[in-house]
Amino acid sequence: MIKARVTVTLKNGVLDPQGKAIEGALGALGFDGIGQVRQGKVFDLQIESADKAKAEEDLKAMCEKLLANTVIENYSISFA
Amino acid sequence: MIKARVTVTLKNGVLDPQGKAIEGALGALGFDGIGQVRQGKVFDLQIESADKAKAEEDLKAMCEKLLANTVIENYSISFA
Repeated sequence: MIKARVTVTLKNGVLDPQGKAIEGALGALGFDGIGQVRQGKVFDLQIESADKAKAEEDLKAMCEKLLANTVIENYSISFA
Repeated sequence: MIKARVTVTLKNGVLDPQGKAIEGALGALGFDGIGQVRQGKVFDLQIESADKAKAEEDLKAMCEKLLANTVIENYSISFA
C-alpha cells in the first residue's frame, strides 16, 4: 500500500479571501508580524498498489480531473 | 522573512465525510484501488522575523488558538 499526500494551493495572484480573513483574525488575537496567509487543501490517499510510478501517474490524473482546479490552483504530490 | 507551512489533518478515528465523498467520486471516475481519502487544510504563512525559534513558538500558539481544533485535529509545522 502506498500512502500519498496531495497538496493543492492557490496560484500566485489569485485572491484568497479566506487567507485574508485568517490574517486579520491572527492580528486581532495579538500575533503581529504576519505578512501573508494563504490557505490550501491537503488530501491523504491510500493506494492499494506497490507500483509507485503508476500511482504517481494516477495521482496526477486525479488532480487534473477532480482534486485541483488547475486554472487557479497548483498541486504537488509527495509520498510518505 | 520566514515562510512556514502549517498542515492541519483530522485525527484518526474522526469521521471525514468530505474525504469519503472524494473517495466515491474518484471511484466513479474510474480510479480503482483507492483505499482511503482524508482531507485536511494547509496554511502558508509569511512571518516578518528572522528568529525561527520564536516563529515556531508563535505558530504553535496560532494553531492552538485559531488554525486547528485540537480536539479533533492534529497540526504540523514546517519551514520552507
